[in-house]
Amino acid sequence: MTLVAGLDIGGTKTLAVAIGPGGDVVATTRGPTRSGDPATVAAHAVATLGELAGAAGIEVGELAAVGIGLPGIVDTDRGEVRHAVNLGIDRQPAPLGRDVEVATGVPTVVVNDVDAAAVGAVELLGGHDSDLAYLSIGTGVAAGLVLSGQLRRGAHGAAGEIGHVVLDPSGPECPCGQRGCLEVLVSGPAIARRWPAADGAPVATHLVTAAAAGDEGAMALLAEIAGHLASAVQLLALAVDPQRIVLGGGVTEAGPPLADAVRSSLAARARAVPLLAELALADRVTVLPPGAAPGATGAAVLASARWSSQAAVT
Amino acid sequence: MTLVAGLDIGGTKTLAVAIGPGGDVVATTRGPTRSGDPATVAAHAVATLGELAGAAGIEVGELAAVGIGLPGIVDTDRGEVRHAVNLGIDRQPAPLGRDVEVATGVPTVVVNDVDAAAVGAVELLGGHDSDLAYLSIGTGVAAGLVLSGQLRRGAHGAAGEIGHVVLDPSGPECPCGQRGCLEVLVSGPAIARRWPAADGAPVATHLVTAAAAGDEGAMALLAEIAGHLASAVQLLALAVDPQRIVLGGGVTEAGPPLADAVRSSLAARARAVPLLAELALADRVTVLPPGAAPGATGAAVLASARWSSQAAVT
Repeated sequence: MTLVAGLDIGGTKTLAVAIGPGGDVVATTRGPTRSGDPATVAAHAVATLGELAGAAGIEVGELAAVGIGLPGIVDTDRGEVRHAVNLGIDRQPAPLGRDVEVATGVPTVVVNDVDAAAVGAVELLGGHDSDLAYLSIGTGVAAGLVLSGQLRRGAHGAAGEIGHVVLDPSGPECPCGQRGCLEVLVSGPAIARRWPAADGAPVATHLVTAAAAGDEGAMALLAEIAGHLASAVQLLALAVDPQRIVLGGGVTEAGPPLADAVRSSLAARARAVPLLAELALADRVTVLPPGAAPGATGAAVLASARWSSQAAVT
Repeated sequence: MTLVAGLDIGGTKTLAVAIGPGGDVVATTRGPTRSGDPATVAAHAVATLGELAGAAGIEVGELAAVGIGLPGIVDTDRGEVRHAVNLGIDRQPAPLGRDVEVATGVPTVVVNDVDAAAVGAVELLGGHDSDLAYLSIGTGVAAGLVLSGQLRRGAHGAAGEIGHVVLDPSGPECPCGQRGCLEVLVSGPAIARRWPAADGAPVATHLVTAAAAGDEGAMALLAEIAGHLASAVQLLALAVDPQRIVLGGGVTEAGPPLADAVRSSLAARARAVPLLAELALADRVTVLPPGAAPGATGAAVLASARWSSQAAVT
């Protein structure tokens, strides 16, 4: 059986899936990310592929293709990554694709993790909604766009980078140099600053739990964050108008209460603004099932597509 | 010779072009719009086509296809328009495409005017940059998107409707029900409220002239408006990342000083925000040559494409 591997290498953890020809998941692994410099990231990817292949009962070299999603600016054509700050990769392009190909002998595609997650979300939603934005809310905030079935990277690879759109010019300072960016209002670190959790505990879950228990400060903060996320949904709908807007990333691991709060905020806007009512924003907000791995899935789908098109040519 | 007609029916004036097979403009007309109800708009379109055909030396029935761009929500598949408020067309769909086809016997395509202008901008820039946003700044404010050569209308026909993205939550009230929308900050009526011109004079030209003459109030207002337009450019670049962002619409008839002020604002942001410097926003801002008619041109291009594809099928 021909298997394709997809890796989602995050700042702290790595998810991997091996999928078969029909898109069925044959094996998965999950573990901590080892990083610090480009060579360590490449070695970590190769080791992860070894574990994944073992779980699927094959040798690494038997994989048909490998897709690797990771945060940073990715040049997919060259297989290079830069500015993956959480992994120890700086502005110097790291040739991750070539390194993994050399070590494994398997054709390897490197993609931005949020772009991969958007493609994965299409797959995980059954492939029927091939027009969506995947809004990743974690350490960083950015969207991946699949428009009419095509991944939109943009002329400078920046499509969907709405984390640095200013929502409130009088808002808090963002490390980027602006004030009131979406990212500085809703990211995991932004929530942690205002509602600190015990070391390592998931900050959004901590906040949602406190709000559910009736803590008024937590309820107010949750409503405020949901309002900013509603602004992000509105922004995506007015700018690119995708059929669905999927909320994902670490912050959404807090579960249904966060997405429900975003929908409530959108419903309130629709009551006040007829234009927004026509856009049915609340109905378009979707979350993936618990345990879904859109980044790894999408990386595998993209690797599979690239491999198929090359196989067709040769 | 096979000619295709394109009409751009605005709230006050109508531009029409007849283009030949190579995209060359064979005839143009320009005149006041007659509107007030759907039947009057249809009759106005038919009369304009008669004038245009006369200028091209043919009968209307000899046109290969007609494209009509107009403000409002357009269902191109059905040839229907609604919410074209400035033309006297309300929420009841007006069957403009069918009415013009019946009167002329020529296949007719109806499109949103800003979408048409985006397609026209691609044509007028030589067809090389087929990835752009056309930001129309007039009575309303909205963008048309051509992404990788494809017109992006969006799942609800709202792609590019960034006029109602909130730039400043503490800004002035917008008729839409929100505060500080892009449209209420930079539209023609918004400028007129703050820098009134004599009845009927172009408000942006009036403002730019006063600023050039050294009026400090005018200079400050021009810088403020340019700053909001820079925010719109940034928003488009971060959301969809088009190769070019073309400024158009009535407000840009003020000429180079407005576009220059927008570029200055973007350059200042780039100096303060490294992320924005990487995106080279000022370099992407383009204006079309004086006298260009992107809406009419794009309507003709879209009609031509539709007509060719149908001709190819039959």
